[in-house]
Amino acid sequence: MSASRKLYVALSGGVGGAKLAQGLAQVLPADSLVVAVNVGDDFDHLGLTICPDIDTVLYTLAGVVHPQQGWGRTDETFGVFEELRRLGGDSWFLLGDRDIALHLLRRQLLQQGLTLSDVTAQLARKLGVDAAVVPITDQALRTMVETDQGRLAFQDYFVRLRCEPKLHALEFQGAGSATLAPAVRAALAHPDLAGVILCPSNPYLSVSPMLAVTELRERLCALTVPVIAVSPIVAGEAIKGPTAKIMRELGVQPTAGVIAELYEDFIDAVLIDTADASLATTDKRFVVAHTVMKTLEQKAALARECIALIERLGLRVT
Amino acid sequence: MSASRKLYVALSGGVGGAKLAQGLAQVLPADSLVVAVNVGDDFDHLGLTICPDIDTVLYTLAGVVHPQQGWGRTDETFGVFEELRRLGGDSWFLLGDRDIALHLLRRQLLQQGLTLSDVTAQLARKLGVDAAVVPITDQALRTMVETDQGRLAFQDYFVRLRCEPKLHALEFQGAGSATLAPAVRAALAHPDLAGVILCPSNPYLSVSPMLAVTELRERLCALTVPVIAVSPIVAGEAIKGPTAKIMRELGVQPTAGVIAELYEDFIDAVLIDTADASLATTDKRFVVAHTVMKTLEQKAALARECIALIERLGLRVT
Repeated sequence: MSASRKLYVALSGGVGGAKLAQGLAQVLPADSLVVAVNVGDDFDHLGLTICPDIDTVLYTLAGVVHPQQGWGRTDETFGVFEELRRLGGDSWFLLGDRDIALHLLRRQLLQQGLTLSDVTAQLARKLGVDAAVVPITDQALRTMVETDQGRLAFQDYFVRLRCEPKLHALEFQGAGSATLAPAVRAALAHPDLAGVILCPSNPYLSVSPMLAVTELRERLCALTVPVIAVSPIVAGEAIKGPTAKIMRELGVQPTAGVIAELYEDFIDAVLIDTADASLATTDKRFVVAHTVMKTLEQKAALARECIALIERLGLRVT
Repeated sequence: MSASRKLYVALSGGVGGAKLAQGLAQVLPADSLVVAVNVGDDFDHLGLTICPDIDTVLYTLAGVVHPQQGWGRTDETFGVFEELRRLGGDSWFLLGDRDIALHLLRRQLLQQGLTLSDVTAQLARKLGVDAAVVPITDQALRTMVETDQGRLAFQDYFVRLRCEPKLHALEFQGAGSATLAPAVRAALAHPDLAGVILCPSNPYLSVSPMLAVTELRERLCALTVPVIAVSPIVAGEAIKGPTAKIMRELGVQPTAGVIAELYEDFIDAVLIDTADASLATTDKRFVVAHTVMKTLEQKAALARECIALIERLGLRVT
């Protein structure tokens, strides 16, 4: 840790967030990045503890994520899953063999009494990930979904029912008593902290569960360093996933502008795509960039934009 | 179930027992065979519930057992295991992907409150096994091993340390309070019961844990129908596994003759191999047969020998 180190905290959900986290890991020294990850999607399935967003971030940073899907492992095999289906087991949640190995090991380590932070750090080391990947909290925090088909556990809604039920409301079980994971708390209070980046993740399904941890929202509001977000909405649609559909169901116009409103109590700027450049003409909080990340170069370029924006805002703040 | 049905109960451990069980399943109608299986080897590993003997019996009867090993699945893949090793997880117990699928499903069904009998029946059905395969007990019964390297859980001794520690004594945790699984109890009390066959399994590691269930030993002693055993010892050596080594460590001469002594309170006859034919000249309890089973034909032939022997003994008893 050098004297001139600048520390960045990235808040990430799954696929979209992981891409920017990978970009940040490319352009920052390993000890300068803490990726705090949503755990609202976590669930117990087949006796395994599955943490979809943590896994997507780990696999992406390790360079072993399935390139087309954006989640799961590349070069994956499905021996367990195929047999499980033959034996009449649950088959609505696709699980690859390598993925299962990680879930088995995580379950075992958790049962030995390690925190989710400890387990995630151990898995990251084994996968060759240098940046700190940390769950937003070590306590159980589970997203529940109120829909026109009733109250559903998140993965029931998201994977089993493919987000088809109409969403009425979200509830984050356990958030009331959850506290930040020690490494997240330490990073947000660290004198080297240069800024916080909300990665382009679904604001309702991925970011809201994290912000439901009161300690996080309070910390973000109290920060003197810049907090920026990258909009996951481009030209009224989400790059990936059901963000736009959910926003319509919640009666919200799916535009990049909404991102600034959702985070208005703590956000300093929102990076929006060139496709939404018109927004920036009327609202100084919006900064235009190429936010679509398909290549590693595009991820690194957007990461540099984020860091540059934090630097500019930091000069303004101090 | 026909009026003239004859019911046979086979007591089996792993590989050797499973071979004879397969022979019996070949030559008997499906509703005439109950295979009661040792659970002393069962253990929890990586959050999975693994029942090595039940699995070997199921895989063997389903015709999907690895033909050379005699345990595990044929056409198995090891995606999970290889990744687990890369991640630094426990790798002393080899687990194939198909095998893991079964363990995951079993753990899930047990957690839903099903008994091990129910779960085993469901897995058997899915694997296409017609004969009833039943754990000897639904209660936890765990073999512990006192050795020159201390007290060890069975799989620590058997797999991790490859039976290398010198064995002093065996303890069957939970046996004192364990009762027979309902289907085993019902079969042993059934008016159609024609006889009981102790398959050629390790008398100490596989049969003793079953006999440690007091209810079983008492039932066997009280039976009026014949109880026979097939010796797992041929010419002073075990066909497979550490039986002979263990007998020597326990100060017992590893001969087929010992089998009759171990079971003397309930046994009517012991099938011994042609290699040990001399035993039969002095002790009428020994009956000579070809006990080495390499082919399905040999398994079926030995099964027929068992049934014929029970029939002859049955005539003598009544």
